[in-house]
Amino acid sequence: MQTRTPIKVRGYHIDLYGHVNNARYLEFLEEARWHFLEQQVEIDYLMKSGLGMAVVNININFRRGAFMGEELEVLTEMVKVGNKSALIQQKIVLKGTDTLIADADVTFVVTDQKAQKSVVFEGKLLELMQQWLKKD
Amino acid sequence: MQTRTPIKVRGYHIDLYGHVNNARYLEFLEEARWHFLEQQVEIDYLMKSGLGMAVVNININFRRGAFMGEELEVLTEMVKVGNKSALIQQKIVLKGTDTLIADADVTFVVTDQKAQKSVVFEGKLLELMQQWLKKD
Amino acid sequence: MQTRTPIKVRGYHIDLYGHVNNARYLEFLEEARWHFLEQQVEIDYLMKSGLGMAVVNININFRRGAFMGEELEVLTEMVKVGNKSALIQQKIVLKGTDTLIADADVTFVVTDQKAQKSVVFEGKLLELMQQWLKKD
Amino acid sequence: MQTRTPIKVRGYHIDLYGHVNNARYLEFLEEARWHFLEQQVEIDYLMKSGLGMAVVNININFRRGAFMGEELEVLTEMVKVGNKSALIQQKIVLKGTDTLIADADVTFVVTDQKAQKSVVFEGKLLELMQQWLKKD
Repeated sequence: MQTRTPIKVRGYHIDLYGHVNNARYLEFLEEARWHFLEQQVEIDYLMKSGLGMAVVNININFRRGAFMGEELEVLTEMVKVGNKSALIQQKIVLKGTDTLIADADVTFVVTDQKAQKSVVFEGKLLELMQQWLKKD
Repeated sequence: MQTRTPIKVRGYHIDLYGHVNNARYLEFLEEARWHFLEQQVEIDYLMKSGLGMAVVNININFRRGAFMGEELEVLTEMVKVGNKSALIQQKIVLKGTDTLIADADVTFVVTDQKAQKSVVFEGKLLELMQQWLKKD
Repeated sequence: MQTRTPIKVRGYHIDLYGHVNNARYLEFLEEARWHFLEQQVEIDYLMKSGLGMAVVNININFRRGAFMGEELEVLTEMVKVGNKSALIQQKIVLKGTDTLIADADVTFVVTDQKAQKSVVFEGKLLELMQQWLKKD
Repeated sequence: MQTRTPIKVRGYHIDLYGHVNNARYLEFLEEARWHFLEQQVEIDYLMKSGLGMAVVNININFRRGAFMGEELEVLTEMVKVGNKSALIQQKIVLKGTDTLIADADVTFVVTDQKAQKSVVFEGKLLELMQQWLKKD
């Protein structure tokens, strides 16, 4: 399932160059991932199991500056589930268009918060991850 | 004791108006308060006692924009200890000058982290607070 | 006219203490002021006249921590227009309740961007400011 | 030439998970790139020529959480100069150790600010870029 998260560019997002600062995009992406997670079934299961999601890699392309007052949309979807990690793809576009501002591959693992170790996707957790995968 | 914390203005501090964004000053002030605390005696006592400092009011004047590449200094000193709250004064100046960028009164209380309640300054804690007060 | 701007607390808003960091509130307030301005008539006039708004003082009370996942609302209204400055009052509450998270008095001036000087509220500009004032 | 930029982890850097937020690392990296640039010869030439640097890709690995009070160091060096883009490698380590917190490949282009187009590295600009390349 792909989610769409709206964000409007404000004065405090802008940096020296007159467009949204690089680091802000990572906040926009995080905003959109929380939004994505809220839409998923049984996200509570994960939280209550003492498990947490930890991002291990972000590969982000900055395609075009985003400017004051522009309305953006962050498209978020899960595209791959591996043995111990999964991949979320996110695109930031001008709302209602295909104009790409930035796109990112975000790889995460699920960690046992107490043991501070990442866990293998199996059983209930694997099932959950597969439900999050996009359907075409 | 007054501390001086250096900060250099970088591209990501700047906003739409070409100078440091309002919200960033609060990060600069927090940076300087942590620096101030590190210089104080027995700060460990406070931390180990399950006590924490909570800011309850910030009154900040923005005097002059700060621009890309400028070197700032945050001057921090404690100026008053009351019954349940204390006052820290902070000034942001152009380094090595009296040119004022911003100045703020920051009022804080000390809270019992478990009880989530502010405590009265007495005994050891009061002593500590008084040591933090500026000496002229 | 009072505006209401929704904000949901996300992981990146949270700091060491487990609640929203002080500096973030200033971003929330700025977000809400842009939202407020968008709702005002003739905001374009101001922008096209080479005028800008500059915040000169923020006096903010932190009343209660805001926690992960909480839905907030920033209430914004203009309450006073002086000779050269005006006052906006902002409250951050738990959405749909009176529970106060923070409240702030924000004083701003209008500056001639070229001359880098604040201007007196008169003529068209004064008219505009008075339209922004809250109606009871 | 490799530069080393010190950063101390403060309360406002920390997020919900108790360690430095992903987006903050991008600010740390930017901080370190400005520091790197300051150390380079003839950086003024670039600025005065109406040229600017624009980051087009960041590929960052998050290796280990960074916690309150930890002293970090960002190591920055230029490692490759292509025809129209160049690559900076940055590592965030625990100060004075090899313990890796995060590492990133940062690809940038040089843009003609007026034309809003990236330029080919040739002549004086190519010379400059080659001077920035690390020497072993």
